[in-house]
Amino acid sequence: MPESLTRINSERLYAALEELGQIGRYQDDETGLQGVCRLALSAEDGQGRRLVLGWMKELGLQIRVDRIGNVYARRAGRRSDLKPVLLGSHIDSVPTAGRFDGCLGVLGALEIVRTLNDHKIETLRPVEVAFFTDEEGCRFGTDMLGSAVACGRLPLEYAYELRDRDGLRLRDELEKIGFLGEHDERVTPPYAYLECHVEQGPILYQKGIEIGVVTGVQSISWQALTIVGKSGHAGATPMNLRSDAGVAASRINLKLREMIATGNYGEMRATMGCIAPVPGLVNIVPGKVEATVDLRNPSNELMQKSEADLLAFYEEVKQLDGVEIRWRQTARTPAVEFSARLQDRIQAAAERAGLSHLRIVAGAGHDAQEFAAICPASMVFCPGEYDGISHNPREFSTPKQCSDGINVMLDVALQLANQED
Amino acid sequence: MPESLTRINSERLYAALEELGQIGRYQDDETGLQGVCRLALSAEDGQGRRLVLGWMKELGLQIRVDRIGNVYARRAGRRSDLKPVLLGSHIDSVPTAGRFDGCLGVLGALEIVRTLNDHKIETLRPVEVAFFTDEEGCRFGTDMLGSAVACGRLPLEYAYELRDRDGLRLRDELEKIGFLGEHDERVTPPYAYLECHVEQGPILYQKGIEIGVVTGVQSISWQALTIVGKSGHAGATPMNLRSDAGVAASRINLKLREMIATGNYGEMRATMGCIAPVPGLVNIVPGKVEATVDLRNPSNELMQKSEADLLAFYEEVKQLDGVEIRWRQTARTPAVEFSARLQDRIQAAAERAGLSHLRIVAGAGHDAQEFAAICPASMVFCPGEYDGISHNPREFSTPKQCSDGINVMLDVALQLANQED
Repeated sequence: MPESLTRINSERLYAALEELGQIGRYQDDETGLQGVCRLALSAEDGQGRRLVLGWMKELGLQIRVDRIGNVYARRAGRRSDLKPVLLGSHIDSVPTAGRFDGCLGVLGALEIVRTLNDHKIETLRPVEVAFFTDEEGCRFGTDMLGSAVACGRLPLEYAYELRDRDGLRLRDELEKIGFLGEHDERVTPPYAYLECHVEQGPILYQKGIEIGVVTGVQSISWQALTIVGKSGHAGATPMNLRSDAGVAASRINLKLREMIATGNYGEMRATMGCIAPVPGLVNIVPGKVEATVDLRNPSNELMQKSEADLLAFYEEVKQLDGVEIRWRQTARTPAVEFSARLQDRIQAAAERAGLSHLRIVAGAGHDAQEFAAICPASMVFCPGEYDGISHNPREFSTPKQCSDGINVMLDVALQLANQED
Repeated sequence: MPESLTRINSERLYAALEELGQIGRYQDDETGLQGVCRLALSAEDGQGRRLVLGWMKELGLQIRVDRIGNVYARRAGRRSDLKPVLLGSHIDSVPTAGRFDGCLGVLGALEIVRTLNDHKIETLRPVEVAFFTDEEGCRFGTDMLGSAVACGRLPLEYAYELRDRDGLRLRDELEKIGFLGEHDERVTPPYAYLECHVEQGPILYQKGIEIGVVTGVQSISWQALTIVGKSGHAGATPMNLRSDAGVAASRINLKLREMIATGNYGEMRATMGCIAPVPGLVNIVPGKVEATVDLRNPSNELMQKSEADLLAFYEEVKQLDGVEIRWRQTARTPAVEFSARLQDRIQAAAERAGLSHLRIVAGAGHDAQEFAAICPASMVFCPGEYDGISHNPREFSTPKQCSDGINVMLDVALQLANQED
């Protein structure tokens, strides 16, 4: 990296990740590792939020908490009338998480502010750091919740009435941890939005690439299937009298693979993550199966085509196996394209730092996709070890992998923050 | 039925089935019916055993409990030196059972003894009623366990060390419910073994036949598969980098159907009853699947061929999906032919009673097949309504269907019990 570039303190960033990762830690039986569980608006999330809030205050930032619990911390620019450059992500986690997902983006942004302070660097525009409420959606069922409310896709009232499995209401839980703020939940569109995140996939790791320039987010379509056949004794039921719901589910699972093999659906990804035959015993023909289908596609058009073709295939399976197939859509978000100009800036910053880079589509959902609807937005991906495994205690990025991404974000943020229009 | 024939009390038999069916009852959400769950050696099984034991005592029978928990109840004959006629079955159930499977054979046999007592009928040979431990194999993974140990196919030590899903050891569970007996587990070969059972299949029902004369039992092969792939994020893991254990399981499930469609495996039946992906979440590529394969075939030769061809297919799947497939045989019994002379006697008894009859191969495994290895054995099948559905709360046979079968068994048992050699 050329000496002229301002660089963050890699050790300091990593120590902050470690410290936040202590909150909600648990011993994971499967991996033998320490995992993190900070479900949105849990006591642990509250504790994590207060830790980060404390850091924001130490840095002299001006803080506001909005009515959905999103937290914004502003470092003033020379021109307070100009829109800020916003750097954000989330600090809530899935139940079996590592220390990096979301946290890298938030603590990396704070490290950028700390670096600017250390070097007494003033910017034209304000720089804001934000963390958003319930990005994971694991507890209340809707992911990217806080940023979706901030950017106007979801109404505040909808969010307030969401309940977790125990029937606890989101608004009450927000109040309980002390993060029911008073600021307007609708954010004024910032000048630009940047988010650094671990890839959560194997592409950068396997190719040995240091920086992912994120081109956008795939469309996501989730279906919950209930397939009803006829239960029967595995030994006594002749094959021609069966309606095996497990066979029907298997057919759909392999159909997904066939669809991908045709190449007719572009870069579609498809997964049957849950297949649960009832009663699920060795000697009983499954009379019922609960299954899920997860479709992803960077093309909205090809996503629609895949959904339609899959529904048509369900009709074939009904005939073939003599089963009923009920399905409901449990999630559906369109593909989002990130700002081409921001992507170019990220790529140029990676090149300035001498880092290898690759354009990559985000596999998972991110807060950045909500901001893409109201301002130029893009993301920087860092590789993760072990094929980028995520949502798992094995999730791991090295100090260099983390600081490479944050340094690139610092470079781009500095340019943007000094740009008048 | 000619008046000269001794007949059981149909209402009394049916009331006993109802009473035993109250133990372990549950409300089945799917059917809206009352089901039965008396898993082997559960508290409910213990309660069911004590109820039947009480009835055995009321009938003045001499009871012995062996070291694997099989219970034998003897009605003395005039000649105590002659081998008994043994009438047996089981009272444990699958988790989602009806009231007839197994219980009809045991309570029918007790009804036969009650009828002999009522009519003060003495027999030359003793008549014994038995119920055997864990015929279903649902909890500890090995079916016909008690009778297999009694007849010498499985060693007692093997049975004792079996564990259920919670790691509970069979011997401890036997002790816990008070049925760890002291009698030798190896049974002295009886003069003959008879078992009355519901068909558990649609053949008699669809043809309107009253009595099934059972010619033998299909070969059974159970495999427990552990398929290990690689867990991954459903959105972020490219299709060509996946090792999806659920896809591998689906492939095997459909292969079973293909094998049957070829016609190369005779009257093979095949079922994948359990498919359990881990973690089983909508957006995670299954890194591991536990699945089962159940193969049945009346031909030992074609069973072997199907097993070999399936193992060869596992090798293909390993390559195709990049998974490991571990499998273990959890049950393996050869096809068994029942005594031709006993079949003839059953058929003659059906004809004496004016009942229609059909030679039929048993689809399921039964305790009778274990006894066929040590003495003449056969079975009487009763039809079941609704295509003979079984292992399901809808399992249902009418009082007449039940008493027809038990009356035929009474007729044959009486003849055998009065025969000197």
